[in-house]
Amino acid sequence: MCELLGMNCNVPTDICFSFRGFRARGGGTGVHRDGWGIAFFEGKGVRLFLDPQPSIESPVAQLVHQYPIRSLNVIAHIRKATQGPTGLENTHPFMRELWGRYWIFAHNGNLVDYAPPLDGSYLPVGQTDSERAFCHLLQTLRTTFPDGPPDRMALRAALEAFAEKTRGFGPFNFLLSNGDCLFVHRATELSYIVRQAPFAMAHLKDEDVSIDFNEVTTPNDQVALVATLPLTDNEVWTPLPVNRVVLFVDGERVAD
Amino acid sequence: MCELLGMNCNVPTDICFSFRGFRARGGGTGVHRDGWGIAFFEGKGVRLFLDPQPSIESPVAQLVHQYPIRSLNVIAHIRKATQGPTGLENTHPFMRELWGRYWIFAHNGNLVDYAPPLDGSYLPVGQTDSERAFCHLLQTLRTTFPDGPPDRMALRAALEAFAEKTRGFGPFNFLLSNGDCLFVHRATELSYIVRQAPFAMAHLKDEDVSIDFNEVTTPNDQVALVATLPLTDNEVWTPLPVNRVVLFVDGERVAD
Repeated sequence: MCELLGMNCNVPTDICFSFRGFRARGGGTGVHRDGWGIAFFEGKGVRLFLDPQPSIESPVAQLVHQYPIRSLNVIAHIRKATQGPTGLENTHPFMRELWGRYWIFAHNGNLVDYAPPLDGSYLPVGQTDSERAFCHLLQTLRTTFPDGPPDRMALRAALEAFAEKTRGFGPFNFLLSNGDCLFVHRATELSYIVRQAPFAMAHLKDEDVSIDFNEVTTPNDQVALVATLPLTDNEVWTPLPVNRVVLFVDGERVAD
Repeated sequence: MCELLGMNCNVPTDICFSFRGFRARGGGTGVHRDGWGIAFFEGKGVRLFLDPQPSIESPVAQLVHQYPIRSLNVIAHIRKATQGPTGLENTHPFMRELWGRYWIFAHNGNLVDYAPPLDGSYLPVGQTDSERAFCHLLQTLRTTFPDGPPDRMALRAALEAFAEKTRGFGPFNFLLSNGDCLFVHRATELSYIVRQAPFAMAHLKDEDVSIDFNEVTTPNDQVALVATLPLTDNEVWTPLPVNRVVLFVDGERVAD
């Protein structure tokens, strides 16, 4: 299995603090040694960093941890391989384009005997069940909305119908973003927290590191973080509802 | 306009030396300050680093320059914007998937009044003529070969037909790879060099740095480098033929 980390905000925010704790689980405090990746939206563009090395040893992860990249939507993943060998092509998150926007997808789970009917519009490059699911998801959106992108709520409903069919094959926790908002589906484990004024201190679970968010925020900032397991030990993380697609916009949980 | 750098090899090779000189042109010895990017194939996977900052100032470029990523096919680009503002979504190279392989594309030139008929299978995310051309190119390949990927020579012929039509809109130097081989089309400026035994010293044009390739190669290594302008001042670079799509495989110029 794997672990997921997502962020959705109302102002471009860096993820250095949270990524520091998350990264430690990729071979340090956790067993997820089979690669890691992170995608940052900047406007409609995406910076995608992928590495089949354990995040704890990766020079690219070191850069990401130190270099504050500010983004409204971030998706990260550390991998413990189930299907597909360790390799760059099997490293999450995955990226494709639909309707002139990049879409980023990361999955934690295991879809067994999963061979969805793919029409060729999106085909997996690697061997994971996860990338197959992502290809089928985008194909489904494209055929469901042939006239172009619908609004967020219609997208959420389509994703919920897709998730309902797909989770019959096994655990299907996923994060999905097109840079506009963040969709989250919990099957087994996923919690979230919204940080907003009044801000407080936060202390990582995986390293003895604290941050005072008062010093790095403005009063209107709102930041939602989603993680497989809570990243801090002095804040209250809320489990997400099971088998629902939750929509985050501007750092707020707006629908599920 | 912009500058292009490509590498195609028979053994995974790092591009640190060449990238060092190339990077200097992105705001140091050259005027290409509007972003830069580089894509490394590792098997079927891709590491894609993009940054709208000048390469000479970019922390990500610093990492790429210092961290030896070994690859058979690399495409890099430094940008001086013509169409589309400076921004991540307008930064080359671009990536899309076709036939279960990632394709990487970078362009140097300016296609004027260029609005190819796009059917929606690939749509540009940014505003550049380059990304429009790439989307149209992949759409053309997909419709030309509906049964799946043809062999390299058939691909080369299809790309040549595509380039012939497209260059009527303006300069259309491009590099394209699917990780298997490298296609190069010269409209105005593009030269190449093949490094093989007996290896020699090379000295960068843009920085006073030399490398002795005898120390970092084995006798069977073969490395083809393609660049808008030669990167070294003590080696013979050969201009590529104009208006031809040249195919490089295993570090060798095999067809044009």
